[in-house]
Amino acid sequence: MKLVSFDVWNTLLDLNSMLDTFTVELTKLMGACILDVAEAIMLTRERIKAMRAKSIGDPRKALEESQEMLAELLGIDVELVKRAVARAVLKVDDEIVLPRAREALEGVKRRGLKVTVTGNVMFWPGSYTRLLLERFGLMNYIDKTFFADEVLAFKPMPEMFKKPLELFGVKPDEAIHIGDTYAEDFEGALRAGLWAVWINPEAKEVRKIHERGFEVPSVEGILEVLGRIEKKS
Amino acid sequence: MKLVSFDVWNTLLDLNSMLDTFTVELTKLMGACILDVAEAIMLTRERIKAMRAKSIGDPRKALEESQEMLAELLGIDVELVKRAVARAVLKVDDEIVLPRAREALEGVKRRGLKVTVTGNVMFWPGSYTRLLLERFGLMNYIDKTFFADEVLAFKPMPEMFKKPLELFGVKPDEAIHIGDTYAEDFEGALRAGLWAVWINPEAKEVRKIHERGFEVPSVEGILEVLGRIEKKS
Repeated sequence: MKLVSFDVWNTLLDLNSMLDTFTVELTKLMGACILDVAEAIMLTRERIKAMRAKSIGDPRKALEESQEMLAELLGIDVELVKRAVARAVLKVDDEIVLPRAREALEGVKRRGLKVTVTGNVMFWPGSYTRLLLERFGLMNYIDKTFFADEVLAFKPMPEMFKKPLELFGVKPDEAIHIGDTYAEDFEGALRAGLWAVWINPEAKEVRKIHERGFEVPSVEGILEVLGRIEKKS
Repeated sequence: MKLVSFDVWNTLLDLNSMLDTFTVELTKLMGACILDVAEAIMLTRERIKAMRAKSIGDPRKALEESQEMLAELLGIDVELVKRAVARAVLKVDDEIVLPRAREALEGVKRRGLKVTVTGNVMFWPGSYTRLLLERFGLMNYIDKTFFADEVLAFKPMPEMFKKPLELFGVKPDEAIHIGDTYAEDFEGALRAGLWAVWINPEAKEVRKIHERGFEVPSVEGILEVLGRIEKKS
């Protein structure tokens, strides 16, 4: 193994913390009822996730599409959505870093492997996610980031997984991707020829579930997975 | 007059504050000599500004182009440039807000005019500039932002000035743009049919320099310009 690619939201950072803060800020800017805003955000998320799983949608417009879909549903100018995400990025505190995310990154880095981040975007640009990773010190373990709005592809598209491999001159079976969304992260990585780890909070332990795939209860499971793969080869 | 469009850097926010912080952060990340980094940033800026003035370059790649040009000149991965701008955005303090920028925005807003921001991007995305405008409270006076990497055009291209007009249903001669870069801001706005105000720090007073154009010593000059145009009509 030469490279480990991490998903960001619900892998390294807590998506609910960010979405909650975003919901509060958007509600304040709109002067609306928080329940309506929360519902619109949830509904938009579901719609976008369903589209992504089928690789529907123009990757060059993936971010704008999500912002505009939400603005339309709420009957507001998209500028308010952009302002609310900016405020949320400034407001969230370090509880947004998931337990043991730092240890997972550190452990992988200590093994001398390349560490990348491969993230889809929704509501806020990859640049804001990078800012959060920087702000909470996680970028110190990361060699390079690949966000959908910068790469102009999104998971589960194979391009999204192959870009880091090309850049570091690594073969697909020398790389492993870990993330929480089955279709985007697990199936996407496997289809691109990588090893894959699915974070399933309901899993009791690290378990092999595919020729090149594992399920783990949380992100630090990547270290046990790396140990198991090494032992075998 | 129905709409006032503001440039951002050196009109509302101090570019040197931001570039200095960016230089320091990039130097730290690289472990290099600050003079070399400062020189590379200056050189890249000059090159990009010269290209923009002639409307050369693909607007869809304007941001990446500037980041990659700088990374190449310094012989580093572009990820370090992206990390350094993220750090700079987190580090700068409210001295970045230019004197009287807030009063200028407030004064225009109080007259009941629409306020927009029309900004080019270099090294960092428009989303980071929006974050700074939000962080220092300036977004409260701004109805909508138009950044080159989101509009997919850059000043002095006419599209860049016409986008806000279309959106608010305003005719070119009912709008005025203010900025510090003669070719991008002043000539660009005039060519698109708008009124234009050039911030020339060497000017002694507000002065009419074109049928639809003024020069002002600093940003609050916009209020005197608006007064003069109103009086005439």
